[in-house]
Amino acid sequence: MIGAYQKRCQQRVDSCLDTLFSPPRPQLERLYQAMRYSVMNGGKRVRPLLVYAACEALEGDVAQADGAACAVELIHAYSLVHDDLPAMDDDDLRRGQPTTHKAFDEACAILAGDGLQSLAFEALATEAHNPQDPSLRLDMVASLARAAGSAGMVGGQAIDLGSVGLKLDRTALELMHRHKTGALIEVSVRLGALASGRAEAPTLAALQQYAQAIGLAFQVQDDILDVESDTVTLGKHQGADIARDKPTYPALLGMDSAKAYALELRDLALDAVAPFGPSAEPLRQLACFIVERRS
Amino acid sequence: MIGAYQKRCQQRVDSCLDTLFSPPRPQLERLYQAMRYSVMNGGKRVRPLLVYAACEALEGDVAQADGAACAVELIHAYSLVHDDLPAMDDDDLRRGQPTTHKAFDEACAILAGDGLQSLAFEALATEAHNPQDPSLRLDMVASLARAAGSAGMVGGQAIDLGSVGLKLDRTALELMHRHKTGALIEVSVRLGALASGRAEAPTLAALQQYAQAIGLAFQVQDDILDVESDTVTLGKHQGADIARDKPTYPALLGMDSAKAYALELRDLALDAVAPFGPSAEPLRQLACFIVERRS
Repeated sequence: MIGAYQKRCQQRVDSCLDTLFSPPRPQLERLYQAMRYSVMNGGKRVRPLLVYAACEALEGDVAQADGAACAVELIHAYSLVHDDLPAMDDDDLRRGQPTTHKAFDEACAILAGDGLQSLAFEALATEAHNPQDPSLRLDMVASLARAAGSAGMVGGQAIDLGSVGLKLDRTALELMHRHKTGALIEVSVRLGALASGRAEAPTLAALQQYAQAIGLAFQVQDDILDVESDTVTLGKHQGADIARDKPTYPALLGMDSAKAYALELRDLALDAVAPFGPSAEPLRQLACFIVERRS
Repeated sequence: MIGAYQKRCQQRVDSCLDTLFSPPRPQLERLYQAMRYSVMNGGKRVRPLLVYAACEALEGDVAQADGAACAVELIHAYSLVHDDLPAMDDDDLRRGQPTTHKAFDEACAILAGDGLQSLAFEALATEAHNPQDPSLRLDMVASLARAAGSAGMVGGQAIDLGSVGLKLDRTALELMHRHKTGALIEVSVRLGALASGRAEAPTLAALQQYAQAIGLAFQVQDDILDVESDTVTLGKHQGADIARDKPTYPALLGMDSAKAYALELRDLALDAVAPFGPSAEPLRQLACFIVERRS
């Protein structure tokens, strides 16, 4: 059932994203191709799904969340392009396809990532995508900028790069993930809630608790899959984390405890949205899906 | 006289920028150091000056332009960090100091650049910096995103990288510069005008004509200085453009015609702001300074 919902969200955001990559002049064709290649790749669109599901949980109109849904996916896509670069994680495969710097070249990948980040803020700030109250939208822009930046996602990647080969304890590992993947997941839920035009402080706090829990659950499950899945299913090299001696939950807690932890986080997420009505069903199903997925 | 004005703008924006680089936790110290290093480097702050001068030209309060002044400089700084990377221009010297990837490392420079871009949008969208009408500020965010992104500055760098070794004609060279440096200069003037809260369509159009002219003049003069100045004065390697066989105005038009063209552009800029009163004096002086500077 979450599969059908995911499909619907994916189609919705993909049709919005698809309009963003028309080069305004022929000299920019290659750059726009690289941007399109980095985004329109059959990605799962987990973050846009969170935007839409949070908006629906508050009985908002999802059409008002399109700009935010595009924005979080564009930020996510740019971060993958830059993370895959030779100077960073040096990955040549992403979702079963050559990474952007392999399909194009390194300079083009750096610029495509840079352009995607700008485009995220443009999508979020542009009137056509976001008919809400302007001060609400400004709050959304500021929230996304904080979550994407050095105190959020970018900071997480910096902590991650500084942690390779180190024996991180659980607190340090959690700190890294809260920045690297958690910040963007949290802000996706926040933007969806704000886009509904119906978010109040206690609701935002409950949704933040939900988002923190599933963000961490997502990462724990990723670490588990890096050990237990295979390269074809994952669309990236299985065992890559272990090969790099990156700290992971299975390495830190043991596989059984890592799995138990993922379930515990799912329950925390479900508790947070328990007071919501049936409109929060997609959020609940997503929490379950995250710890059950195989890729 | 523009020297004193420039000094004042520099101090004003530097004291705002200086508050932005406190790491929220010790694990992020190195990243924030790299960001600070990339920004707090004694830069001339031409773009913030344009923000302030445009705001003052419309008799606005410069305190309302601080966020915009920071934002354009943060975008400029990030673009230099990424342009200097080995996969791009591969420069090891910038303003007489090691470039960010030399002083830190390549991964850190990529991330610092990414974080600076986010920070620009945060500075622009955050209430404390910008007490204007929220819809005006949203317009500012959207304008900056467009100017910084793939249809603007990032696109210009892509065109530039695709042009090395090619024999560009004047139209093609102008197109590259209008994107690479012109877009950010134009938006600096636009943001300053919007920040004044007094910008109307004809005023914005006149200021855009001014900005287009000085943006191009700035680039023509840069090309001239690359030939005529020396490494110590420039703070970067003299002759770098020629060494890379990059298209330049002196190469294309000859040195004398390049110099005449710079003066012609200055006059175009002065014409555009002729209807303005004495409040536009800094804009006028800047137009003159751009073609007279030696570094």
